[in-house]
Amino acid sequence: MSDMVCLALAGGVGGARMAHGLAMVLPPEELMVAVNIGDDFTHMGLRICPDLDTVMYTFSGQADPETGWGIEGETWNAMAALENLGGPTWFRLGDRDLATHLERTQRLAAGETLSDITQHLSAALGIHHRIIPVSDTPVPTVVETKDGDLAFQDYFVKLQCDPAVTGFRFDGASGAMPSPPLLDAMTGGKIDAAIICPSNPYVSIDPVLAIPGVQELLKSDIPVVAVSPIVGGTAIKGPAAKMMAELGIAPSVANFANHYRGIADGIVIDIVDEADAETLRDNGLHVLVTDTVMTTDVIRKSLAADTLAFTAQLRG
Amino acid sequence: MSDMVCLALAGGVGGARMAHGLAMVLPPEELMVAVNIGDDFTHMGLRICPDLDTVMYTFSGQADPETGWGIEGETWNAMAALENLGGPTWFRLGDRDLATHLERTQRLAAGETLSDITQHLSAALGIHHRIIPVSDTPVPTVVETKDGDLAFQDYFVKLQCDPAVTGFRFDGASGAMPSPPLLDAMTGGKIDAAIICPSNPYVSIDPVLAIPGVQELLKSDIPVVAVSPIVGGTAIKGPAAKMMAELGIAPSVANFANHYRGIADGIVIDIVDEADAETLRDNGLHVLVTDTVMTTDVIRKSLAADTLAFTAQLRG
Repeated sequence: MSDMVCLALAGGVGGARMAHGLAMVLPPEELMVAVNIGDDFTHMGLRICPDLDTVMYTFSGQADPETGWGIEGETWNAMAALENLGGPTWFRLGDRDLATHLERTQRLAAGETLSDITQHLSAALGIHHRIIPVSDTPVPTVVETKDGDLAFQDYFVKLQCDPAVTGFRFDGASGAMPSPPLLDAMTGGKIDAAIICPSNPYVSIDPVLAIPGVQELLKSDIPVVAVSPIVGGTAIKGPAAKMMAELGIAPSVANFANHYRGIADGIVIDIVDEADAETLRDNGLHVLVTDTVMTTDVIRKSLAADTLAFTAQLRG
Repeated sequence: MSDMVCLALAGGVGGARMAHGLAMVLPPEELMVAVNIGDDFTHMGLRICPDLDTVMYTFSGQADPETGWGIEGETWNAMAALENLGGPTWFRLGDRDLATHLERTQRLAAGETLSDITQHLSAALGIHHRIIPVSDTPVPTVVETKDGDLAFQDYFVKLQCDPAVTGFRFDGASGAMPSPPLLDAMTGGKIDAAIICPSNPYVSIDPVLAIPGVQELLKSDIPVVAVSPIVGGTAIKGPAAKMMAELGIAPSVANFANHYRGIADGIVIDIVDEADAETLRDNGLHVLVTDTVMTTDVIRKSLAADTLAFTAQLRG
């Protein structure tokens, strides 16, 4: 058994689903899922890490299959009572989900790191694969819009991605360290491939790439493959295509690929975008065309297996 | 309409029920319920005020009729999930109840006072009577036991009142101020009677009496009546009788009355303790013998009405 590790970078629902597919194919010791922390925020005193939670709930089989986030069969009695008290209800906190935030918050207050807490929560949920925050230091994403700067969740949830974006910042990123398990894998030369899961490039993956050392790792001689969240000129989920348009970039797999120029060696695109494959190859990229829309666990797993095989081919 | 106010001092379930009875009889402007804050604590980052919540839930008709605390028909999904995560579950937080703690915690963090927050929560729950914390400053009760000092909720909930008590402290009481609405009523000479509801004298009422100015108010020329939580040598609810025994005091209405010597002018005892009335009167106390066990709303209201009439007789 190899002690080499495939590093998966993941943000929200699409990233979580593909990472879960990878976990169906790879044993725990051969996969490390580094998760975006730019969405993390403190709300009503609770420390909430939406992407880590989405990945954990997806891996544990608890995730709501409709929304992709939150817990299947969740109840909302705390939210209903909070609404009755005139409290803030724009960020929906399910009753069971609240336990995750309470436990994380109290452990952070007790001095534990986000990495250690994520490890604890994962174990409690029966997850054997390694899910890690990209950093233990908060690096909040700031969404720059025509109306001014917005905290990520204000933009994403409260304002439902309505304001037109002009850019993004990851506050404190330059001073943040990769989380200890990621740093250990990086400095130990244990990572032999990286897969950028189909997550929003601007607000799910770029905040991961902003952590010092991560881009350098991806630009080293390991094969890096990015799976496109853009399918047929739109995003499967979330505001990726809307953001591209607002930034003056046509939402296409070509422009998606361009976003990772110098980082990705290969790109995985959906069958509906097959016509773009030739142009991508002309631009020096390796291209895998397959079914990328993870409507079922079977597709989730086959996308992971195909992507891993494709990535292995790129290995020098 | 008088601008005079009856001040009710209340702690847990018995106190909340009697205070609610008083609210059935008196209009909002003639009653002020000053609630114990010695039980208040911070748990998992949440500021929890059990006695204020019990009084509010009782007044709003939400209180669980079986336990007297918590919310009727409560669900426990957050606790079940927390248990699954290995979190602390010794203090049971219902899903709806969590909303109260979240809203209070975030308002405290935003700089609001406990008085203002309690006013807000009361209004949101449709409560017109004034429920106020005795102070806005935390004055945590410390239970002194043969095994050492214990934080109140560790003694009361985690250890189920098992350790034998040797005494009680109210940390910071001497430097605490009465809450603004209480101070305003006190200094304005608006309080024309006080009723000590049937709450635990040691851990529900004494922490109220420990706030500077409260004892002086009760020792002034207003009539003060204490309703005994000791009935037939035991406590209707909670550890009052157990505490008395551990302190070497026989749990009787006579010894209960003795606890408030110099403070209470009159005492209300249950019919089962009628035989003790004469001794109490010999000791200079006015005594009302009535049905004090509030098994129904009717008794709750009649106890309140009888106690108010009795108190009015004591007025100079």
